[in-house]
Amino acid sequence: MQLFHKHKELIYEAAEALLSRNYYSVFQDNPKEYSEEEKEEGLAAFQSKFNTDFSELAAVSEVWIGEEISPYLQTGIGIRYPYIEMEKLIENAKTGWNSWRNVDIEEKAGLLSEALERIKERFFEIGYSTMHTTGQGFLMAFQASGPHACDRALEALTMGFTEIKRFPEQTKWEKWVGNKAIPVRKTWKPIPRGISLVIGCSTFPTWNSMPGIFASLITGNPVIVKPHPKAVLPIAIIVSEIRKVLKESGLRMDTIQLAPDTTANPLAKKLAEHPDVKLIDYTGNTKFGNYIETLPKITFTEKGAINPVIVDSTKDIEALVTNLAFSISLYSRQMCTSPQNIYVPATGIKIKDGFVSYDDFCDRLKMALDELLSAKWGPSTLGCVQNDVTLKGVKDVSKALGKSVSEGEPFKMPDFESARTQSIRVLAVEGGKQEVYQREVFGPMVFVIKSENTTKSVELALRGAEKSGSITCLIYCTDFMLNKEIEEQFNNAFIPVSFNFTGQIFVNQHTAFSDLHGSGNNASGNASFTDSGFITKRFVWIGNRFMV
Amino acid sequence: MQLFHKHKELIYEAAEALLSRNYYSVFQDNPKEYSEEEKEEGLAAFQSKFNTDFSELAAVSEVWIGEEISPYLQTGIGIRYPYIEMEKLIENAKTGWNSWRNVDIEEKAGLLSEALERIKERFFEIGYSTMHTTGQGFLMAFQASGPHACDRALEALTMGFTEIKRFPEQTKWEKWVGNKAIPVRKTWKPIPRGISLVIGCSTFPTWNSMPGIFASLITGNPVIVKPHPKAVLPIAIIVSEIRKVLKESGLRMDTIQLAPDTTANPLAKKLAEHPDVKLIDYTGNTKFGNYIETLPKITFTEKGAINPVIVDSTKDIEALVTNLAFSISLYSRQMCTSPQNIYVPATGIKIKDGFVSYDDFCDRLKMALDELLSAKWGPSTLGCVQNDVTLKGVKDVSKALGKSVSEGEPFKMPDFESARTQSIRVLAVEGGKQEVYQREVFGPMVFVIKSENTTKSVELALRGAEKSGSITCLIYCTDFMLNKEIEEQFNNAFIPVSFNFTGQIFVNQHTAFSDLHGSGNNASGNASFTDSGFITKRFVWIGNRFMV
Repeated sequence: MQLFHKHKELIYEAAEALLSRNYYSVFQDNPKEYSEEEKEEGLAAFQSKFNTDFSELAAVSEVWIGEEISPYLQTGIGIRYPYIEMEKLIENAKTGWNSWRNVDIEEKAGLLSEALERIKERFFEIGYSTMHTTGQGFLMAFQASGPHACDRALEALTMGFTEIKRFPEQTKWEKWVGNKAIPVRKTWKPIPRGISLVIGCSTFPTWNSMPGIFASLITGNPVIVKPHPKAVLPIAIIVSEIRKVLKESGLRMDTIQLAPDTTANPLAKKLAEHPDVKLIDYTGNTKFGNYIETLPKITFTEKGAINPVIVDSTKDIEALVTNLAFSISLYSRQMCTSPQNIYVPATGIKIKDGFVSYDDFCDRLKMALDELLSAKWGPSTLGCVQNDVTLKGVKDVSKALGKSVSEGEPFKMPDFESARTQSIRVLAVEGGKQEVYQREVFGPMVFVIKSENTTKSVELALRGAEKSGSITCLIYCTDFMLNKEIEEQFNNAFIPVSFNFTGQIFVNQHTAFSDLHGSGNNASGNASFTDSGFITKRFVWIGNRFMV
Repeated sequence: MQLFHKHKELIYEAAEALLSRNYYSVFQDNPKEYSEEEKEEGLAAFQSKFNTDFSELAAVSEVWIGEEISPYLQTGIGIRYPYIEMEKLIENAKTGWNSWRNVDIEEKAGLLSEALERIKERFFEIGYSTMHTTGQGFLMAFQASGPHACDRALEALTMGFTEIKRFPEQTKWEKWVGNKAIPVRKTWKPIPRGISLVIGCSTFPTWNSMPGIFASLITGNPVIVKPHPKAVLPIAIIVSEIRKVLKESGLRMDTIQLAPDTTANPLAKKLAEHPDVKLIDYTGNTKFGNYIETLPKITFTEKGAINPVIVDSTKDIEALVTNLAFSISLYSRQMCTSPQNIYVPATGIKIKDGFVSYDDFCDRLKMALDELLSAKWGPSTLGCVQNDVTLKGVKDVSKALGKSVSEGEPFKMPDFESARTQSIRVLAVEGGKQEVYQREVFGPMVFVIKSENTTKSVELALRGAEKSGSITCLIYCTDFMLNKEIEEQFNNAFIPVSFNFTGQIFVNQHTAFSDLHGSGNNASGNASFTDSGFITKRFVWIGNRFMV
């Protein structure tokens, strides 16, 4: 219980934050608040791994695999990971489970908090690892994969702790029959469901996987992490740190395992279908996600999405365009929360003293995007495109389908001559051409859609969400009553809405302990970080009764 | 908000009870605590409905249907209910939903509590209705369908209230960027999933349906109740009372509807597959339940089960047999929680000063069953067999498969000459003959299974549970360490265990606010009254953000 006592205050504080939903963050996300040495050491630690076997997992294997390629260098980084056969993974997980399932909830919470503290020591190394696997700019890579992912992990851990503490471990129940009390001792136990498979993605290897990992572990399930073969290192570090703490606590490291695979021999489907796998957390493309959801298991999915922006009216068109340009540029629109479809009325956007025409808006957006990219921090805001398929998908959208506002062009990434980059492509499209924009086009491209009016914009956006899902929706509108209506319509389709974002608050950013991530009930996925269901579906309450 | 203020204290008190899980009951379950007039009026109200149209629902219909038959009288009771076409039901539900979904959670809770208070006024009428549709003895019919069902409904209501109150309606979130705070107003809304279908069963028409009804309503979903065509009246009264309170509050009655059907033209499958139906609560046979679970909807099922009793050792063999005989006799083993398979070691049951042999145990059980039936309250403890199919199922088990300990014979039901009755059949079976007992035989029959030893008994019981599910498990064993082991084995298979029950506490009885009913994760079903998932799966948290 030593580790619980060490982290107790943090856990209870986090539990309160979960309920208040005010701003709360435990892990400092500003790299400048860390020392220069930490940064240098992190970079050195990352670089020292090039072309070596990643042995930190202390996993036994005769086959070592790895195919990560840095989008900045466009060369392989040569790190190899221990490959483990599926049946061996399952067997190991069961052995791990035997040691883990009966550990007290306090001890579990303490141990997982301790792992987060250890992970914190490696934020820079994780940041550089993320940068060179996902293509994110350094700042985002540092923030998303380190502090923000750990805040999300702590959130899941805390929700798990809260849920498992909800019922008493035991009580003496008494029923009066006539004038005699009949006592029964009752106990309540949260029984973990079984092996948990966490399938990672290539763009957010830790942020999207850590909530599921921590939710499954805190509720007593063993975890197998199947990372995307192109983005293994960041999550391999996380898994290693958890394994080390398990070992130090005298528990089986195999309570969590890394299951690397290759593009040629993928493991995800085989693992997902294994009868002993009971829980699946998945982030990735819609097609595979839909398949995952059909399995007779408990699934938590985050799939593709087309996120709309509806522009109706604004008090500050400059601030609107600047905010939007940033949200679009961030990581070259490779976030699940990035806006794709920007609806603008044909009659223009109402401003204080008139209207901004549709064409004017397109020009302003192009200018803001250009300006952003030309700023000192521009290239690193966009970062690299993670892979060629994404780039091809964007290029495949024919110009002829609309009017080109801004071509997507490669741009120079300082320090990295070979970086795979592309500026944001903007295509102006008529609202009637739904076949063009009512599908996900992942990567550096947006559509500015000319719709009859805002009512029509809402209708089109909802149709897109129904078909392809939406994780976010951004509205610019100054009409209070109209906003009420729009809010209700989107909410009833299970889509959260953000209104009139300007300044340093962006629609793509969901902060732990306050914003729910993923609505849990539209075509973009069935899970939400972190509502109680994200936790309670992973275990089953069982009550026993003892005659006393 | 008047109704909330009226019931506020009750709701908060119930919410506390949910967490403490101590004994808590709001509705008095002893008929003697009510006046003699209430009882007489209840009977008269019930009898006055014979051969009439049940108009209380105030539903518009040109077709009136009904096929209920009293198992006591074995004649139809002639009550007819308004039949409504499926598309009309769906349309009505949507209209009801529009008025219901935006009602404040406090108002919803107040209104539903008020409905329970009104239902309480009709406990005797509901009791007699239950008796003459299910065949339960009067006391059980009164308790289960009235007070106990209302306690369960209040439990679901309270869990819903608690869950929806978990997150604040809104908060002013502030993030500090540099030395400037950026404020964002955030709101959290529980969005109901959609039309909720509650499919009832013929044996517990209110007890098994009210939790789902109240869980769906409190979370803002409209409900369509599809009762078993042979047990409509008890739940029709419940639905009517809720509709009346809705009407009085100026809301649409169609927020809840009764959807009666006939054996010849069943509605359940059609309704379940309707795309607008998003939630399904189901109690009934395993085959249909398994089908329900395959639908791409949120389902809450309670299916068949074979509940084991494992007898190893006891301090009081008399008390053991008496308790067991009662559990088996109660409602002629037509409860989902009734024991079916009694495992006894071939070497006998260890008692204080020796052993009770397997044969001796069989004799004692037969004697206890006979004694119970011959007591004054015996026939009404067994009640009637709800239908001929149940009776046939029991009769179809060939004597040749084992050794007959007790034949099932019709017995006299005081005041009801035509009652469909049968005493408990007991068949002694060798443990090796799993094909005989490893399947559900619903109704007045148990197997006493001779197993090598207790380890083998556990193994066989777990195999049965894996195949056909178990909702309860009763262990008689005085060895503390062995009990620990057994508890763990059953719990890990998601089966709750009751130990050494004697006296006035019975394995079949699950009390609201303390015992969870259904484990939620074995072949007997996927839901549990009332864990938080029973509530939270019915709505989705959506968070909106407003720049301020």
